[in-house]
Amino acid sequence: MSRMALDYESINENMKKAQYAVRGELYLRASELQNEGKKIIFTNVGNPHALGQKPLTFPRQVVALCQAPFLLEDPNVGLLFPADAIARAKHYLSLTPGGLGAYSDSRGIPAIRKEVAEFIGRRDGYPSDPELIYLTDGASKGVMQILNTIIRGEGDGILVPVPQYPLYSATIALFGGSLVPYYLEETANWGLDINDLRQSVAQARSKGINVRAMVIINPGNPTGQCLSEANLIEILKFCFQENLVLLGDEVYQQNVYQDERPFISSRKVLLDMGPPISKELQLISFHTVSKGYWGECGQRGGYFEMTNIPPKTVDEIYKIASISLSPNVPAQIFMGLMVNPPKPGDISYDQYIRESKGILESLRRRARIMTDGFNSCRNVICNFTEGAMYSFPQIRLPPRAIEAAKKLGKMPDVFYCLKLLEATGISTVPGSGFGQKEGVFHLRTTILPAEEDMPEIMASFKKFNDSFMEEYEDHRGYSRM
Amino acid sequence: MSRMALDYESINENMKKAQYAVRGELYLRASELQNEGKKIIFTNVGNPHALGQKPLTFPRQVVALCQAPFLLEDPNVGLLFPADAIARAKHYLSLTPGGLGAYSDSRGIPAIRKEVAEFIGRRDGYPSDPELIYLTDGASKGVMQILNTIIRGEGDGILVPVPQYPLYSATIALFGGSLVPYYLEETANWGLDINDLRQSVAQARSKGINVRAMVIINPGNPTGQCLSEANLIEILKFCFQENLVLLGDEVYQQNVYQDERPFISSRKVLLDMGPPISKELQLISFHTVSKGYWGECGQRGGYFEMTNIPPKTVDEIYKIASISLSPNVPAQIFMGLMVNPPKPGDISYDQYIRESKGILESLRRRARIMTDGFNSCRNVICNFTEGAMYSFPQIRLPPRAIEAAKKLGKMPDVFYCLKLLEATGISTVPGSGFGQKEGVFHLRTTILPAEEDMPEIMASFKKFNDSFMEEYEDHRGYSRM
Repeated sequence: MSRMALDYESINENMKKAQYAVRGELYLRASELQNEGKKIIFTNVGNPHALGQKPLTFPRQVVALCQAPFLLEDPNVGLLFPADAIARAKHYLSLTPGGLGAYSDSRGIPAIRKEVAEFIGRRDGYPSDPELIYLTDGASKGVMQILNTIIRGEGDGILVPVPQYPLYSATIALFGGSLVPYYLEETANWGLDINDLRQSVAQARSKGINVRAMVIINPGNPTGQCLSEANLIEILKFCFQENLVLLGDEVYQQNVYQDERPFISSRKVLLDMGPPISKELQLISFHTVSKGYWGECGQRGGYFEMTNIPPKTVDEIYKIASISLSPNVPAQIFMGLMVNPPKPGDISYDQYIRESKGILESLRRRARIMTDGFNSCRNVICNFTEGAMYSFPQIRLPPRAIEAAKKLGKMPDVFYCLKLLEATGISTVPGSGFGQKEGVFHLRTTILPAEEDMPEIMASFKKFNDSFMEEYEDHRGYSRM
Repeated sequence: MSRMALDYESINENMKKAQYAVRGELYLRASELQNEGKKIIFTNVGNPHALGQKPLTFPRQVVALCQAPFLLEDPNVGLLFPADAIARAKHYLSLTPGGLGAYSDSRGIPAIRKEVAEFIGRRDGYPSDPELIYLTDGASKGVMQILNTIIRGEGDGILVPVPQYPLYSATIALFGGSLVPYYLEETANWGLDINDLRQSVAQARSKGINVRAMVIINPGNPTGQCLSEANLIEILKFCFQENLVLLGDEVYQQNVYQDERPFISSRKVLLDMGPPISKELQLISFHTVSKGYWGECGQRGGYFEMTNIPPKTVDEIYKIASISLSPNVPAQIFMGLMVNPPKPGDISYDQYIRESKGILESLRRRARIMTDGFNSCRNVICNFTEGAMYSFPQIRLPPRAIEAAKKLGKMPDVFYCLKLLEATGISTVPGSGFGQKEGVFHLRTTILPAEEDMPEIMASFKKFNDSFMEEYEDHRGYSRM
C-alpha cells in the first residue's frame, strides 16, 4: 500500500532529526505526573510568571487599555487606570490605525521600531537605524528566520556553543544544516577558548562543511556565564578573520547577578573596534520581552537588529516575514514599553522601579541560594549563575548509576533527572539536551521558583541526591565532597 | 573576496524564489505614496480593523481583564466591565497558571483546545478530539507548519488552486517543494472541474513529481466562491483515490454572502461519507480569529485540526511546535471566545449579536455594491463575491495597454494596478500575484472599505478604468460594455 504524505514514514526527515529537550521526555513525564495529581515544580523552562513572578503593572495597564480602547471614553477610566497609562495607551493607539486587531507592517509598527532604535542607541552609545530592526513573535522566531536565511543545505555549518540552548540545534536540524559545536570550558567558568574555536572550524572544514555563522548566547543559556569585553573582542575578531556572521542571542541582557561583568552588547563592542571590522562584520542581535524582570513569555514579543547586512538581504528577510503577515501587535506594544519604561517624575515611575528592582534583586539572591545549594550536595559542582535564569550543575554519576541507566536504555543524566522528578516533583532538563563533553553529566534548572520556596526545594534536592549517591556509589572509588 | 553568509548572493535561494504579492510592489508603492501624504485606500490585504471595522466589545473586555488581572480585585471594576466579561476573564485566568505572561503548552492551552473541539462538534455534528487541535499564531503559521511536515524536496508536489492565496506558493517555494497548479474556472463561477484536476496530477507525475497533498480554500481567496457539498464530495473522493492529504483552508467560514450554499466544512462532508474514506483520508483544517466578524488579524490567533493523522506524526508536529515554545496566549483566549461567544440570557448577548450581525450584513451589502460596481465598468467582469472578503474582477486589457506595460518591463496587470493606485489611491493586488490563465488579467480588492465610502470608491474606480480604457483602446477591435 502506498503511503500518505502524513504517515510517519513519509514526513520530512529533518523534523524527526530535530530534538528539543526543554519540552522532551522529562517534561512529558512531569505533565503526566501533574495530571495524576502530583505537585510538580516546573523548572524545565524559563517561564517566570508560571512560577509566580508577577507581571509589571504599568505595561499591563497600557496593553489592557489598548485592547479595550472604548474604556478611554468612559468617564470612570481614571478610577482604574493612572493618567500616565492612559496617555501611553493613547500614544500607542495613535501609532496603530485599526488598533491591536489590525495587521501591522510585517517588520512591526514603524514608531515602535524607532523606540527600539532609540533604546539601542542609549544602551550602546551609537545610533541605531529602525529600518534594520524587525519585531518578531518572540526572539525564537527571529532566530529561526535568520537561520533559514543562512542555511542552504547540509554543507552549511553553524558554530554553536556546547552546552547550548536547543533552539539552535533543533532549528539547524529542521532546516537541514550542520551544527558545528564549540565547547565551553566548565573549569574556566564556562569560558570560550579561541584556540578550541579555531580547531572546531578547521575540523568542520576538513569534512567539507562551509562554516557560515557563529552563535553566542550572552548571558549564557544553560550555563549562566557573562562574557567579558575582552572575550567579545576575541570572538568578533575571530568571526571577521573567518568570514562568519555572528548571531548574538542577548535575550538575558537584563538578567545579570554580579557586578564585575555587566552586560555589554556585541554591537557596542563591534562598533567600539572601529573600521574595517565595525563596517563589515555581519551581526544579528536578538532581544525579547520574555526574560529579564518582564518575563512576558506568553505574549511572544521580540526583535532582531541587523548590523552590516546588505540592503538586498534585508529586503528578502522582509519579504519572507510578510508571508506570515505581521508579528502579533499586543506584544509589539510590550516591546515599546520595555524599551521606553516610565521615567522619573511619571506617576507610575516609583511603582515600576520598585517592582522591577524587587524581581531582579530576588533573582540575584536565588542565583546564590541555588548555586550554593548544589555545591553543598555530594558529587555535585556548580559554577555560579552570573546571569540568565539557569543553574547547570555537573552531577558526577557513579559508575553503577551509569550502568543502571544503560540497562534501562536511558542516558545516565536522563535516568538521574527522572528519578529526581519522581522523588521530589522537581522537573529539570538533563544536560544531554544541551550537549556536554563525553562522560560528563549535568542538569539544567531555572532559578525561578519563588524565593521563599527555594530553601525547601534545595533541601529536597539535596536529600534526593545524597541518597541517590549513597545507593549507587560503591563506597570505594568515589570520594565524598 | 569570499562572500559572507548574509550577502545577497549567498543566502538561501528558496527565499528569493518565494513571492508574496499581497505585500509586494503595489503595497510598497502605496506605502511610499502614503508617506508622501497621499490618501491611500488599502484594499490589498484582508485587514478589516485597519479599514474601520470595530472590534467586538465582549472579547476585548475579557482579554483586557486577563491582561490586567489586578483589576478583578478593584472594587470599581464593575463600573467599566459587565459581570459576564468579569466571569469569563476569571474562567480563562483559572486555565492559565501564570496568566497571559506564561508560555502555555506548545499546542495551546488544553481547556481552550477543548472549547474549540466542542465548537467543531456542534458545527459538524461529529465529536472532535482536543488532542488533535493545535492552536497557532494565526492560520498562516499553521499552514506553514503542515507544509514543512509534508515537503521533503522539489520532488514533492502540492496541488494548489489558481488563482490562489500566495501564502501557498510562497511557502512551497520557501520549503523547496513544487507547486502543482489546478485552475479554477472563472466562467463556471470559479468552480473546480475534477477532470482538470486529474489532468494536473497526471501531468505533474509525468514530470516525476510526487503529488502529496491538495489545498482548497473555501470560501475562496481571492475568488470568493463557496464550494457546494457535491463539489466537496468529488474533491474528497479524488484525494482518496489519488492518496492525497487534503488541506482545507476554511478561515472565511463566517464570511458567506448568499444563502444557496452555506459554509460546510470538509470534515463534515468527509465524516458524512462514512468508511473507508472517513477513517482513512488525511485532512487538516485551518481556522482563525482574523476573519469573519472578528477580524482580529493583529492578535494572530488560529488553529488547525487533524483528522486521520497517525499519532506519531501528531507527536512530531508537537515537537516542532515546541521549538518556538507556545503560540501567543492572548490570541488563544480570543480563540476560546470566538468558539464560545455569549449565549442567550448573558448580559452581553444582545450587544454581541447586534455587533456581529451588523458587520456581516454590511459585508453582504458591500459584496453586492462592489461586484455590481465592477460589472458596470468598461471591459471589467466580475463574479459575485459569494464569500470571503475579496472581489477578483477580470480586467480585459486592450492590446495597446499590454504593449505599453511591456515597454516598461511590467506585467500588464501590475501596470494597470499601479496606474489605478496613482490616480485614485486605491491599493489593490494584481491578479498575477495569485496566478491566472495566460493572457487573462485580474486584480484583487477587499470588500472591506466602510460601507458609506463604497459608492465613492467604486465611482472613483469607474472613472479611472473607463478613461484608462478610452486611452488604450484602439476604438476598432474592442466592443464597449
